[in-house]
Amino acid sequence: MIAAQYLGDSKFGIADSVPVAPKAGEVRLDVGYVGICGTDMHIYHGAMDKRVAPKETTGHEASGIVREVGEGVTDVKVGDRVVVRPLDYCGDCPACDAGHSHICHNLKFMGVDSVGAFQSSWTVKARTIHKLPDTIDLRQGALIEPLAVACHDISMARVKAGEHVVVLGGGPIGQLVAAVAKAEGADVVISEINADRRAFAEANGIKAVDPLNQDLVGYVNAWTGTKGADVVFEVSGVQPAVDVMTEIAAVRGRICIVAIYPATAPPKVNLFKFFWRELELVGARVYEAADFEKAIDLVSSGKVDIDKFITSEFDLTSIDEAFHTLATSPVGMKTVVKCGA
Amino acid sequence: MIAAQYLGDSKFGIADSVPVAPKAGEVRLDVGYVGICGTDMHIYHGAMDKRVAPKETTGHEASGIVREVGEGVTDVKVGDRVVVRPLDYCGDCPACDAGHSHICHNLKFMGVDSVGAFQSSWTVKARTIHKLPDTIDLRQGALIEPLAVACHDISMARVKAGEHVVVLGGGPIGQLVAAVAKAEGADVVISEINADRRAFAEANGIKAVDPLNQDLVGYVNAWTGTKGADVVFEVSGVQPAVDVMTEIAAVRGRICIVAIYPATAPPKVNLFKFFWRELELVGARVYEAADFEKAIDLVSSGKVDIDKFITSEFDLTSIDEAFHTLATSPVGMKTVVKCGA
Repeated sequence: MIAAQYLGDSKFGIADSVPVAPKAGEVRLDVGYVGICGTDMHIYHGAMDKRVAPKETTGHEASGIVREVGEGVTDVKVGDRVVVRPLDYCGDCPACDAGHSHICHNLKFMGVDSVGAFQSSWTVKARTIHKLPDTIDLRQGALIEPLAVACHDISMARVKAGEHVVVLGGGPIGQLVAAVAKAEGADVVISEINADRRAFAEANGIKAVDPLNQDLVGYVNAWTGTKGADVVFEVSGVQPAVDVMTEIAAVRGRICIVAIYPATAPPKVNLFKFFWRELELVGARVYEAADFEKAIDLVSSGKVDIDKFITSEFDLTSIDEAFHTLATSPVGMKTVVKCGA
Repeated sequence: MIAAQYLGDSKFGIADSVPVAPKAGEVRLDVGYVGICGTDMHIYHGAMDKRVAPKETTGHEASGIVREVGEGVTDVKVGDRVVVRPLDYCGDCPACDAGHSHICHNLKFMGVDSVGAFQSSWTVKARTIHKLPDTIDLRQGALIEPLAVACHDISMARVKAGEHVVVLGGGPIGQLVAAVAKAEGADVVISEINADRRAFAEANGIKAVDPLNQDLVGYVNAWTGTKGADVVFEVSGVQPAVDVMTEIAAVRGRICIVAIYPATAPPKVNLFKFFWRELELVGARVYEAADFEKAIDLVSSGKVDIDKFITSEFDLTSIDEAFHTLATSPVGMKTVVKCGA
């Protein structure tokens, strides 16, 4: 058994590890595959050293097979093929009391604030587990977590069949948001400056616009008969996208903030347009249990072809190469790390 | 019969006028009272000369008595005591098609984009009329329009009984929003830098905080047991209020933008907090028919004591003095102009 360790300064090490026996309410998994997320890249670059001390094992987009269950665990059994919803909430704050434990005031994000999944064996609370059906393999399972992010975004923005949806930013999450919106029956456009990412969208049956060389406002007006977009997802995190999001939204349009902006450098937002068109803006953070179930259903039913999103794979022993490759040549969508099971 | 005329350059004139006979679908009113709104003040100061040409008769917060009805008008009759919902929509744009005619793409705001109510007699479309019950006099009726603004804000923010509500800005609209929130059973705080306005709030049973000399964030945390405000109304239009609105909102808190910001100088908004706490921001513009009915019900039932909000009155022949007084000594809340009926 081995575990990857973040060593700081864009380096990982591989150490021998001993499986942690599950306590009451916990389960121990043999880890299958773990996806690499933008947050993992931020950690790798040292941008989150205050939250992630060196020698921590990171990783949170995980699938695996249950090998041991702790006392009192009845709804998960040895041999189950599962994914992990990596949220550890306190259960005792105003947000948890209100039923929003995914935004717990004291939330620990597993793989960031506590030990993560880039290892052979991972012991987690049983309440974080979702079972995979036979139709989804462990490699696909590693993408359930980011797909659940997209499902949560779609849910928060209340996307309905037939609506006009614009996704600003065509990275992995933006493409998954577009794919889920399309699966819900929406008509979807991705606005993305990178030609490879526009081609990826188009290969998945989604329209793509280059906002640097095309008039996005004019495009949306023509596409919607001057109505504007029913829903806009801001997934890019840049001021030009914030500028345009209020220009392309319909009367009573919903704008969903998916990108994470720096609190210390807030962007300028055209609040006049919120008044003028009664726009709505809503933030979306991680996911709830229902979003994982929705993601599993979308993959299982074939409504989202998740294999297309897996564009490279490395073994756990090559995790340093996996991160280095992503950092220096960020083509493709999702990279998964094979951890053994 | 007379009509006030905006002459430009902070001046009004009084001219003789001839009643306009109602066409099909119209009614002619003898105007009762007309309130002076912030928009009227902007016109007076010349800030809206592109929309309001000199010699136009302005005014849109009106009550009156029906004196003539045009062909085909069946639901309003001569002698009815009424108020006017001053929105003239096209009925044929995407917003009207979607049932949001109050945000019509081609909306004409009566009294700004077309002839208004500062006159003895006003002819309007019958579809703009709401009848007053016997329990509301014409003087009170002049405040139904701004109270409907507040009702619309409360509706858009979905305020419920028992919620913690903060209103940023204690001018007339902020005070009316607070009064409606209180009538709905919410626990309400007004944040306002002007001591007279804080005293006005407190006299109406609403808590008041001075954000320049008190720690509003600390106050809200203590008041809500660290939860934060369920709803925040931004009615002040200044950057410090935009800064604080995201600091005091609870997880999944709703922030309603009532203030009108300049489109050319958008404020900085902490979008990180929208992600972090899944906040919602919603713009509210004017009102819908249901908001007028709600406002009439709140006054009729005594749930909002509207008389307190009328702090001065002038005759139509003294309209110049009314505006000059408001411009040079803006104490009090609402000024009404008595037009005759």
